[in-house]
Amino acid sequence: MIDPTTLPEPRFVEVGARDGLQNEHVPIPLEVKVAFVDALSETGVREIEAGAFVSSKAVPQMGGSFEVFENIRRKEGVKYSALVPNEEGLERALEAEVDKIAVFTAASETFNQHNINCSIAQSIERFRPVVARAKKARLGVRAYISTAFYCPYEGHVKPSAVLAVVDRLVALGVDELSIGDTIGRAAPFDVRVLLESLLRRVRVETVYMHFHDTYGMAVANALTAWGEYKVSGFDSSAGGLGGCPYAPGAGGNVATEDLAFAFAASHGRVTLDFAKLKAATSLLEPHLGHAMPSHLGKLVPKA
Amino acid sequence: MIDPTTLPEPRFVEVGARDGLQNEHVPIPLEVKVAFVDALSETGVREIEAGAFVSSKAVPQMGGSFEVFENIRRKEGVKYSALVPNEEGLERALEAEVDKIAVFTAASETFNQHNINCSIAQSIERFRPVVARAKKARLGVRAYISTAFYCPYEGHVKPSAVLAVVDRLVALGVDELSIGDTIGRAAPFDVRVLLESLLRRVRVETVYMHFHDTYGMAVANALTAWGEYKVSGFDSSAGGLGGCPYAPGAGGNVATEDLAFAFAASHGRVTLDFAKLKAATSLLEPHLGHAMPSHLGKLVPKA
Repeated sequence: MIDPTTLPEPRFVEVGARDGLQNEHVPIPLEVKVAFVDALSETGVREIEAGAFVSSKAVPQMGGSFEVFENIRRKEGVKYSALVPNEEGLERALEAEVDKIAVFTAASETFNQHNINCSIAQSIERFRPVVARAKKARLGVRAYISTAFYCPYEGHVKPSAVLAVVDRLVALGVDELSIGDTIGRAAPFDVRVLLESLLRRVRVETVYMHFHDTYGMAVANALTAWGEYKVSGFDSSAGGLGGCPYAPGAGGNVATEDLAFAFAASHGRVTLDFAKLKAATSLLEPHLGHAMPSHLGKLVPKA
Repeated sequence: MIDPTTLPEPRFVEVGARDGLQNEHVPIPLEVKVAFVDALSETGVREIEAGAFVSSKAVPQMGGSFEVFENIRRKEGVKYSALVPNEEGLERALEAEVDKIAVFTAASETFNQHNINCSIAQSIERFRPVVARAKKARLGVRAYISTAFYCPYEGHVKPSAVLAVVDRLVALGVDELSIGDTIGRAAPFDVRVLLESLLRRVRVETVYMHFHDTYGMAVANALTAWGEYKVSGFDSSAGGLGGCPYAPGAGGNVATEDLAFAFAASHGRVTLDFAKLKAATSLLEPHLGHAMPSHLGKLVPKA
């Protein structure tokens, strides 16, 4: 039986203000986004993805990311990162004084075409100067690999397809990988199969698991990665933001509070403040047009 | 790594019509309950808990259980069971021609007092003639043990408390045990700790795990019991019925479709029909006053 005292402290990357919000269809006012990020800064989380320097035509919700970075109160000890698709985006990110950037590709060609309109190889070539310049500027670089288990167009994605992308990203010099179960279709079995081979290639500290809770398996997957493979990095979204709960294949990111609760219940060391997380999501809720989908968010009066 | 082909076929006990409905506050008309049970009979599930012969003052929703049993179409190969608290209830259950009965106690004294107004020892003494008579009538007997991990009043419940109750129930001659995480507070770690000792005392075939999804850990717990301990029996509720999703500590039973999906995604053999499950819950939804809380139930058009 796994001894939880031998397991690493979970490290959360809060992606609610980016991956979460960009999938919400109601435009959120700048001051609410800023207040949300500021509130997240108080929860004890170490890293907040606060925006994306992408085309505001393609992703309207991320249009005000520069202004978000301009207006947030940066808290000591918290990293503020942003998604960056290309050199132009990097320019804006540098101007905005982000602490870290994230590039993004996928393990499925069809998904990558639909998502960013180029092949995987093309996306990686596009990152080459971005990563080089970011590293010169001493920014950390994360790389998202979407559809690392299942693709909404191609179905099951083989670990070999993920590993091929990992190898290219590592060769570019990225510092960490976020392995995404974009449609929330993976089961712990799939997590085991992928991690068995992935962890032979990269150090476990560089791996972040990025689960969506579409089918209710995100917590099971995270506990498997942590308990059986000592993965400590997890992306999550306050309130389970992201993806309309009524759209097929678009379940939200796993909720930060649900994941934190599950780790704490499993005797993991969790220092996030649940009341402050609730306070952060409460700022957004009146603007969203729906309740937060997280399990803990539905409990009253508190977790 | 666990080889899923070595794992047993999951067996579901559908408790939506009893544990689910009894926690719904809106009275459901008899004909809807009957239609719900009939629709569940078509899903491929082997056992349906269709009612409870308890005081209709204490549990108004179960008041019409006799009429439910009178009016359902019994499907070949499906067992229809009912909760029975005492000899009077057993009389009614026998009259209603149930296939199986279930008695219920708890591992926490305080919870048992609140729930059925007697000590654990008293409840077990009350079951003695019930079980004896049921066995004479060749009915199967299940025993529920609530709060087998956490109690809303006492907090963490020690495995030794559960085992003490198990020993007494086994001595009475019950055929199977339903181990309940009543408030949905257990993590896979707790499941491992309990099963390590429980399975040294009873055969794994007699064990059913009964998880609630209050905090989002039910699927993780079920996959742990199945994948690591070869437990194959699981209670679940179509749609995740049961417990108002907005009341603290009252999360619904894990949804049958979420659990079935997770097992199927884990390469378990699952023969439940998802479309028919959706059809069954769709009959109830207009009467409930809220959407089904299951993950799959929120996806459109289908799982």
